[in-house]
Amino acid sequence: MKLEEIADLVGGTVRGDGALEIQGVAGIEDAREDDITFVTQKKYVDSLKRSKAAAVLVAREIDTGKAQVITANPTLAFARLLNTFHPPRPSRPGIDDRAVIGENVMLGQNVTLSPFVWVGNNVTIGDHTVLHPGVVVGDDSQIGHHTTLHPQVTLYPETVVGNHVILHAGVVVGADGFGYTPDEQGRHYKIPQVGRVILEDHVEVGANTCIDRATQGATRIGEGTKIDNLVQVAHNCTLGDHSILVAQVGLAGSCTLGHHVTLAGQVGLADHVTIGPQAILAAQSGTFRDIEEKGVYGGSPSVPLNTWKKYVTVLPKLPDLTRKVKDLEARLNAIENK
Amino acid sequence: MKLEEIADLVGGTVRGDGALEIQGVAGIEDAREDDITFVTQKKYVDSLKRSKAAAVLVAREIDTGKAQVITANPTLAFARLLNTFHPPRPSRPGIDDRAVIGENVMLGQNVTLSPFVWVGNNVTIGDHTVLHPGVVVGDDSQIGHHTTLHPQVTLYPETVVGNHVILHAGVVVGADGFGYTPDEQGRHYKIPQVGRVILEDHVEVGANTCIDRATQGATRIGEGTKIDNLVQVAHNCTLGDHSILVAQVGLAGSCTLGHHVTLAGQVGLADHVTIGPQAILAAQSGTFRDIEEKGVYGGSPSVPLNTWKKYVTVLPKLPDLTRKVKDLEARLNAIENK
Amino acid sequence: MKLEEIADLVGGTVRGDGALEIQGVAGIEDAREDDITFVTQKKYVDSLKRSKAAAVLVAREIDTGKAQVITANPTLAFARLLNTFHPPRPSRPGIDDRAVIGENVMLGQNVTLSPFVWVGNNVTIGDHTVLHPGVVVGDDSQIGHHTTLHPQVTLYPETVVGNHVILHAGVVVGADGFGYTPDEQGRHYKIPQVGRVILEDHVEVGANTCIDRATQGATRIGEGTKIDNLVQVAHNCTLGDHSILVAQVGLAGSCTLGHHVTLAGQVGLADHVTIGPQAILAAQSGTFRDIEEKGVYGGSPSVPLNTWKKYVTVLPKLPDLTRKVKDLEARLNAIENK
Repeated sequence: MKLEEIADLVGGTVRGDGALEIQGVAGIEDAREDDITFVTQKKYVDSLKRSKAAAVLVAREIDTGKAQVITANPTLAFARLLNTFHPPRPSRPGIDDRAVIGENVMLGQNVTLSPFVWVGNNVTIGDHTVLHPGVVVGDDSQIGHHTTLHPQVTLYPETVVGNHVILHAGVVVGADGFGYTPDEQGRHYKIPQVGRVILEDHVEVGANTCIDRATQGATRIGEGTKIDNLVQVAHNCTLGDHSILVAQVGLAGSCTLGHHVTLAGQVGLADHVTIGPQAILAAQSGTFRDIEEKGVYGGSPSVPLNTWKKYVTVLPKLPDLTRKVKDLEARLNAIENK
Repeated sequence: MKLEEIADLVGGTVRGDGALEIQGVAGIEDAREDDITFVTQKKYVDSLKRSKAAAVLVAREIDTGKAQVITANPTLAFARLLNTFHPPRPSRPGIDDRAVIGENVMLGQNVTLSPFVWVGNNVTIGDHTVLHPGVVVGDDSQIGHHTTLHPQVTLYPETVVGNHVILHAGVVVGADGFGYTPDEQGRHYKIPQVGRVILEDHVEVGANTCIDRATQGATRIGEGTKIDNLVQVAHNCTLGDHSILVAQVGLAGSCTLGHHVTLAGQVGLADHVTIGPQAILAAQSGTFRDIEEKGVYGGSPSVPLNTWKKYVTVLPKLPDLTRKVKDLEARLNAIENK
Repeated sequence: MKLEEIADLVGGTVRGDGALEIQGVAGIEDAREDDITFVTQKKYVDSLKRSKAAAVLVAREIDTGKAQVITANPTLAFARLLNTFHPPRPSRPGIDDRAVIGENVMLGQNVTLSPFVWVGNNVTIGDHTVLHPGVVVGDDSQIGHHTTLHPQVTLYPETVVGNHVILHAGVVVGADGFGYTPDEQGRHYKIPQVGRVILEDHVEVGANTCIDRATQGATRIGEGTKIDNLVQVAHNCTLGDHSILVAQVGLAGSCTLGHHVTLAGQVGLADHVTIGPQAILAAQSGTFRDIEEKGVYGGSPSVPLNTWKKYVTVLPKLPDLTRKVKDLEARLNAIENK
């Protein structure tokens, strides 16, 4: 691919030889002599000079001696080039004889039902959707078009999955919410979970993540929201659009997240917590209170990240501080007793 | 269903029109005009007045203008009504041709073996038990009656599952405990895990949770204990009856839990820890010491919840406190040097 | 098995009756009258005296009246005896008719492909390797010899699995790394994940653990490293040899671990963190900084464990400390105002 073709593709302009042949795309350190790379921060300019890459995607022209494509968002351009140089594996459309299909199932065009797929009754599956081996789709579920369910995904009955959704291997959508109430003998009586889960368009869910069905109504994941591996979303949560939940995050029941929320790895939310739009919780933080305001938060219970950073610096000095206070007290006693 | 029939069903008494026709059951805010709802706390009485619900389950008569069913435990009554209005989906009893069944397998009456179920040798499965697609049951396992194994559940060999047990999709029971010992070359030599797992009656286990087999003997989950999604129970743990483990809890090896213990989300226990009956650990807490006494605990390492609540309030003020102590010291120095 | 045969097997020497018949091997408390047990610490000598065991594995002769096998590493000897007394279940070699095998698949000798196994195109599987029911192996993957994939394991395309590897049920290897970049409309554009995962020889991975493929290049797990259940290893991580990751550990992208690292349960590492050889992070700790030096660390953010132990002891006394400082200030004010 010529550098000028790359510039066209990503909506950028060439500085240098537009006829340069580019064979691949790679990070600064891994790039080979006919690759294009990308740089987003000044601190990487030195690495770039040492890089073997023939060309670079940058937001602003820099002095490196390498051919450049100037583009507003080099990372986005890089991602698009990765797609071009590494097109997704073609699926194997068709309904395998070893798939089991229930009654009243509506299949779109070019659907892939792999061996050992099990589809219940009254299910709809849209065009170009791929179900990998071992996928189970419960009765009365709907799956949109251009959606991919990787191996061993389970959709419980009545699940709704949108278009262009990706569910990675082992994802479980629609298992019962965790709800019990003590009976007369102090045993846990199961509260029936009769709601469902709705995953809107362009949602991606990581491997072995669990999204529980609502007690009543729906657990809902907003459009374009991306969820990493091993995340827990409990019953009746509502996630806004374009949010990010990193691996091992846990949401208790009935949480509400605004749009563009980011929960970093291992964050926990207590039940009924609301997180406002664009709020960011740092890794391992947790909150049982609402966080309405946009900003970055850390710690458990969470406080503004800067506050957290300051107090955790002091923590290791706490024993010293305690000793010092004791010492001050003794000296003050001595003065007062004089 | 008439209101007086509902009262009979839940063991309550009617205030208002017993002939009132009820079509469904729902939370205060979601209830429609012919629904019954429930209220357990005074603070919801205002919401109740605004609710469209035709009737309400309450512990004590309240002044709302709505028909009422007075019952000792309105939440329990609500759960029972949910079961009545939303009966569980009927299973599809029978042994599918695409299930694989080993030698010397004993099947009770009305067992469901779905397509792509694999059952090993010397397995017993009780009456009315349902194995959903993709379930794998290892050799020499026993499963009781009225038990449900959702899709992709794996039981390793020699697992014992009681009656009325529910295992959600992706649960793994009986994988090897995590045990190694360094060999002469500093490599980890695997300690064979030759014990098993016993799940007693009325246990429910959430999606993708893992319960490891014992090194020797048994990892045991007591009767009526409920475990949420993505929980880790390591080898040789013993859980008492009627306990609650919320999502993403992790128990290291050989922990012992009393009855009616509650571990909230993301709690961690170090190995060989004992938690006494009715103790509650708040979300994200952790302990490497035994907690014998009934009570609520928080933090990592855990302390009584009230203690935790007090000190976490002070944490953000720690840098100020440090400065203040420094200032006091300077002033004291000045006084002493006078 | 005679005691002298046991001594031969574990490379030890007998004290007492070498002709003693041993029927089994068990922990101190569970041992029966014809069992051998083991002791590694002096504090267990009393328990040993009360134990029913006929004999004991010890590093140094002790005075108990029981027959003994003196061996440098009694725990290792115990593990080896467990293997002898409880040999692993034999596999059922052969290619089941209900397994699906792609084109250009190379199978070694004595391979087991169970029912409902799906193997893609251009896959290599080594001698004596066992694929349990429901395993999915993506195109262009390689699996070594003497390797076991338990039920429902998914290998995405291009995964490389070494020899003598054990993957427990529900493990997902090679799912897409979690990488997005905002597009012009503030939506998350998926960065294609075109790398792969390499698991070296003697790796063991616990149930439902996820190891993501690299964006480019490889996520790599070093030889002999053992990973517990429900662990998350993100894209482009590199784990050294003979490390230990306990359950529910989470590694963000591009982390680098040295050899013989230990991460205890629920530990979290931020992206691009390096952990040096033989470092140990205690349970529930976390770090966003590199930890180069060998040692034990605790807390989040992590500090040397001893420092952590000291300051967490002070935490519950923080409200008192604050009050005391306030009191000192008042008293100092009084003195200064005199």
